[in-house]
Amino acid sequence: MQSRILSRRDIDFLIHEWLDVGALTQRPHYAEHTRETLDAAIETCAKIASDHFAPINRLLDTEEPRFDGERVHSPEPLKRALKVFTDAGLMAAGFDFEYGGMQLPYTVERACFAWFNAASIGGAAYPFLTMGNANLLLAHGSPEQVDTYVRPMLEGRWFGTMCLSEPQAGSSLSDIRTRAERQPDGSFRIFGNKMWISGGEQDITENIVHLVLAKIPDEQGRLVPGVKGISLFVVPKVLVNADGSLGERNDVALAGLNHKMGYRGITNTLLNFGEGRHTPGGAAGAVGWLVGKEQQGLSCMFHMMNEARIGVGMGAAVLGYTAYLHALDYARNRPQGRPPRDKDPSAPQVSIVEHADVRRMLLAAKAYAEGGLALNLYCARLVDEQRTAAEQAARDDANLLLELLTPVCKSWPSQWCQEANSLAIQVHGGYGYTRDYMVEQFYRDQRLNPIHEGTHGIQGLDLLGRKVRMNGGRALALFAGAVGATAARAGQAGGEWAAAGQAIIAARERLDAVAARLHGLGDLDRTLANASVFLEAFGHVAVAWIWLEQALCARAALERGGAQLHADEQAFYSGKLQAARFFLRWELPKTGPMIDLLDTADTTTLDMRDAWF
Amino acid sequence: MQSRILSRRDIDFLIHEWLDVGALTQRPHYAEHTRETLDAAIETCAKIASDHFAPINRLLDTEEPRFDGERVHSPEPLKRALKVFTDAGLMAAGFDFEYGGMQLPYTVERACFAWFNAASIGGAAYPFLTMGNANLLLAHGSPEQVDTYVRPMLEGRWFGTMCLSEPQAGSSLSDIRTRAERQPDGSFRIFGNKMWISGGEQDITENIVHLVLAKIPDEQGRLVPGVKGISLFVVPKVLVNADGSLGERNDVALAGLNHKMGYRGITNTLLNFGEGRHTPGGAAGAVGWLVGKEQQGLSCMFHMMNEARIGVGMGAAVLGYTAYLHALDYARNRPQGRPPRDKDPSAPQVSIVEHADVRRMLLAAKAYAEGGLALNLYCARLVDEQRTAAEQAARDDANLLLELLTPVCKSWPSQWCQEANSLAIQVHGGYGYTRDYMVEQFYRDQRLNPIHEGTHGIQGLDLLGRKVRMNGGRALALFAGAVGATAARAGQAGGEWAAAGQAIIAARERLDAVAARLHGLGDLDRTLANASVFLEAFGHVAVAWIWLEQALCARAALERGGAQLHADEQAFYSGKLQAARFFLRWELPKTGPMIDLLDTADTTTLDMRDAWF
Repeated sequence: MQSRILSRRDIDFLIHEWLDVGALTQRPHYAEHTRETLDAAIETCAKIASDHFAPINRLLDTEEPRFDGERVHSPEPLKRALKVFTDAGLMAAGFDFEYGGMQLPYTVERACFAWFNAASIGGAAYPFLTMGNANLLLAHGSPEQVDTYVRPMLEGRWFGTMCLSEPQAGSSLSDIRTRAERQPDGSFRIFGNKMWISGGEQDITENIVHLVLAKIPDEQGRLVPGVKGISLFVVPKVLVNADGSLGERNDVALAGLNHKMGYRGITNTLLNFGEGRHTPGGAAGAVGWLVGKEQQGLSCMFHMMNEARIGVGMGAAVLGYTAYLHALDYARNRPQGRPPRDKDPSAPQVSIVEHADVRRMLLAAKAYAEGGLALNLYCARLVDEQRTAAEQAARDDANLLLELLTPVCKSWPSQWCQEANSLAIQVHGGYGYTRDYMVEQFYRDQRLNPIHEGTHGIQGLDLLGRKVRMNGGRALALFAGAVGATAARAGQAGGEWAAAGQAIIAARERLDAVAARLHGLGDLDRTLANASVFLEAFGHVAVAWIWLEQALCARAALERGGAQLHADEQAFYSGKLQAARFFLRWELPKTGPMIDLLDTADTTTLDMRDAWF
Repeated sequence: MQSRILSRRDIDFLIHEWLDVGALTQRPHYAEHTRETLDAAIETCAKIASDHFAPINRLLDTEEPRFDGERVHSPEPLKRALKVFTDAGLMAAGFDFEYGGMQLPYTVERACFAWFNAASIGGAAYPFLTMGNANLLLAHGSPEQVDTYVRPMLEGRWFGTMCLSEPQAGSSLSDIRTRAERQPDGSFRIFGNKMWISGGEQDITENIVHLVLAKIPDEQGRLVPGVKGISLFVVPKVLVNADGSLGERNDVALAGLNHKMGYRGITNTLLNFGEGRHTPGGAAGAVGWLVGKEQQGLSCMFHMMNEARIGVGMGAAVLGYTAYLHALDYARNRPQGRPPRDKDPSAPQVSIVEHADVRRMLLAAKAYAEGGLALNLYCARLVDEQRTAAEQAARDDANLLLELLTPVCKSWPSQWCQEANSLAIQVHGGYGYTRDYMVEQFYRDQRLNPIHEGTHGIQGLDLLGRKVRMNGGRALALFAGAVGATAARAGQAGGEWAAAGQAIIAARERLDAVAARLHGLGDLDRTLANASVFLEAFGHVAVAWIWLEQALCARAALERGGAQLHADEQAFYSGKLQAARFFLRWELPKTGPMIDLLDTADTTTLDMRDAWF
């Protein structure tokens, strides 16, 4: 039996009952849509992901792409699955009608693509990277660049990459050394090495559009230190003729593939630009064209960062989610042992879902996975507000709250849904440790998420170092407003929910206080020394709030439905309430010691000396 | 550069400065030993492990043993490394002189073998399983069984296994179905399937000694339900002639290998007993002999369980430890970024060990790894007390305290040293996710430890359900006494250490109180519903105590040494103090919310319904 890869019922709950994406169809930009068209898009994705990607997910792990020194070989089944994806027009799903897209609300687009992440996080990465690339070119490229590169990508004929890191410059982008030499015709020649480039080479599409960060030397031929000198270039693997046909091979060469612990469906590459391997005349440099303005490369790239980080957060959440569903199936079907109160060995064994400790693991996994998914869909909904809210002020507020939540929506599921993945293995016992079950692969796949698109530590620095102080703390104030509004509704619900609202407000207020205290120290190293703890405490408070939101929504549905509600629906909402209780009782209190520690501006790690290790 | 696989300096600190194993050489059983002979044994192991096992650790992962349908193929380098191990006489190191052993104190034996776990947890598992098997036969087998099976194992000519689980009976051993049919000559014929048998088949030794749990049918041919009907049998792969030479193949057949996420140096097998594959006459059953008394199989097996669990705990601790050392090397040699207070991009990048967040990760990994190792060596020292203390009362007390700590010393490193493994990956950034570095393998290897030798959940049930109530709570009282004695010494040290001692006592007292409260509920399901939380809280309190012990020992050494102390020694002891501070400030407070939850006898998981998931 194949497990469900994701819960359609939960997706509907989140985007319709909770986030009310139907309301977006009232806005001009989405006026062509109805609930039916949105649901049809999700249904299509659920089906293609389940039928074409999930069945090859294990194969993509065992038959990793190979490089024979000349070309990369990807498994044929992946090529077929990606063709189904592009043939269905999904590459353009999130883009406007004028680019052949479906012009879906961003929340719905994310809900659609969540299915592919759940089905095969690695294999599905090719189109998602391509969409990010296309988005960036649409935002910053010239009309000619859009015509030349974006259209073939949205048709699925070419894929795209993002080339930021270099072997000596990962988290520290200011240290990149790739040079872009200006040519008389206005083009540039690129020389340098790029590391960790996902999809940097493959044999799936006839061309690859690289977006490359590089520095233009000054008149003395020097590279400007720091991030200010960075510009952005479009550098195709194969040069494109004026009529759009493919011309000569550009001077971009694959130096090698990285062999990963998981996430093996997509190549990860070291690329050499301008070493002359593919240009008979020698190292003349890879031909590239400036995107946007000179020295604005990083801000162009970061324009897309919030959405890229929601992408990682969604991927992390659904990797935990699909593992949880696999574990649930296993737990319902595996007989083992008997309850403590009645250990009569002549009685038949019970399904392990009956054991309290297995229920603990499943409930925790559910709380992490559904919490992470909900948080990211909430952030996606903020993207929709930022894009289409009627009032500019509402757009600005949505943008600011999104900025604050972005490091959280990326890092929280990367941390806690890995815990869901671990619990899913644990529920399977020894079987979970074998490659006969999928959960071990999900666990390996997931481990990338706290590393790429800004490590966990970088997210902490972003949150505590920048985001809490943005616009004089306005982002924090918006968060306080959102939490306060939820708590006010919880207060009307009374009982445990009112108490939960107060507990979340209390924790949030403490976070505000420690942020102010840490920034008042006058010692930046000390302020930021425990940034990861701040990130984790903030994340748990945010997800507690998201769970309270879900609980209030489920509670209202139960009240509305009353006794007439179908048993399945009652069970669904009751599960939401119980997972919310779990998070509020078991998880939110973990923030207490974290905030206590932050409140001391602890210097244990700062005081540690290299020689003492 | 190859990283150190373990710290000899720390081992010396733990076993000599802290646990004073030299004192054991005053006891008659170890009178042949001196500090020099003990150190020489450790040095030999450190060298063989580093020179012969660590270099093949990656190969054992990539070249997993294969089964061609007829035989298993193991990598030749493993066979050579194991030959070095056995040629050095290490198989018998922990055994008495009369069996050709070194008669090492158990604490020293564990310190010796830790090096092999660190070097190659999978490859080194063959001899360790064999020692466990030999120990069990020595304790419960007949003199003839000892001569026939134990001697060839201790010479390294044969390896041994433990055959407990079956496909339908993992955690629930009472449900095993393997039958042992009594024969007129006093032997038995075994029929059944055994699952998860490590080393169950291999091409390394000429024979394999299986110790098999099975049930002897009653006169009506029925198997007695429950654990009471279980007996233990020795079943060799190849039958042994009266003169010790090998005879015919026994009816034990490999049904298949399990393919694991990690820990691939050793085969893991499904074995069929008595299906007739290797016996031309058909399924006559595998020939086996009873070990110990009928229906005492499980108690024979559990006799060895404490030491088997220390073995897992040690393996888990040193997997985290070696990952920590690898990450430390990387952090010292990887330049990236600049400190927050001075981000001048034209200045050179600093080593990442300079970043507070990297120091946080390394310090946490150090605290988990060294804490886990110290806890397990403390338990090993209890084994020595239990075996050789002069007074029977001291032996009994050591045994009781060991019983209490066994689920903790197995589960705590399996959980927290996996966190060390994860942090080691994180310190490496993207490189840590590739197979070019060892840390990803350590992470995969480690994930087995919360599963085998009793899952995490089983350890929780053991601790809360059995151990805290043993002998009317005497084990808990002994623990209280040990913690109190440490806190009294900490009180004399004053300052932060005195406060730490009080904090640990307070947490321990709360644990006693919640254990009493949970057992007073009159509802066993509810009592045990949060047993895993109890286990985790207890574990953190125990390790906080172990860290306070280490800190007091390091502090005394610093005081003794004064200004004359070599800088390396000052640094070593200062590192111990800082890691202790980290654990006491960052980790011990995490027990607060856990004990709060236990104090409510929380029913969130019990109240969850299958249909609600």
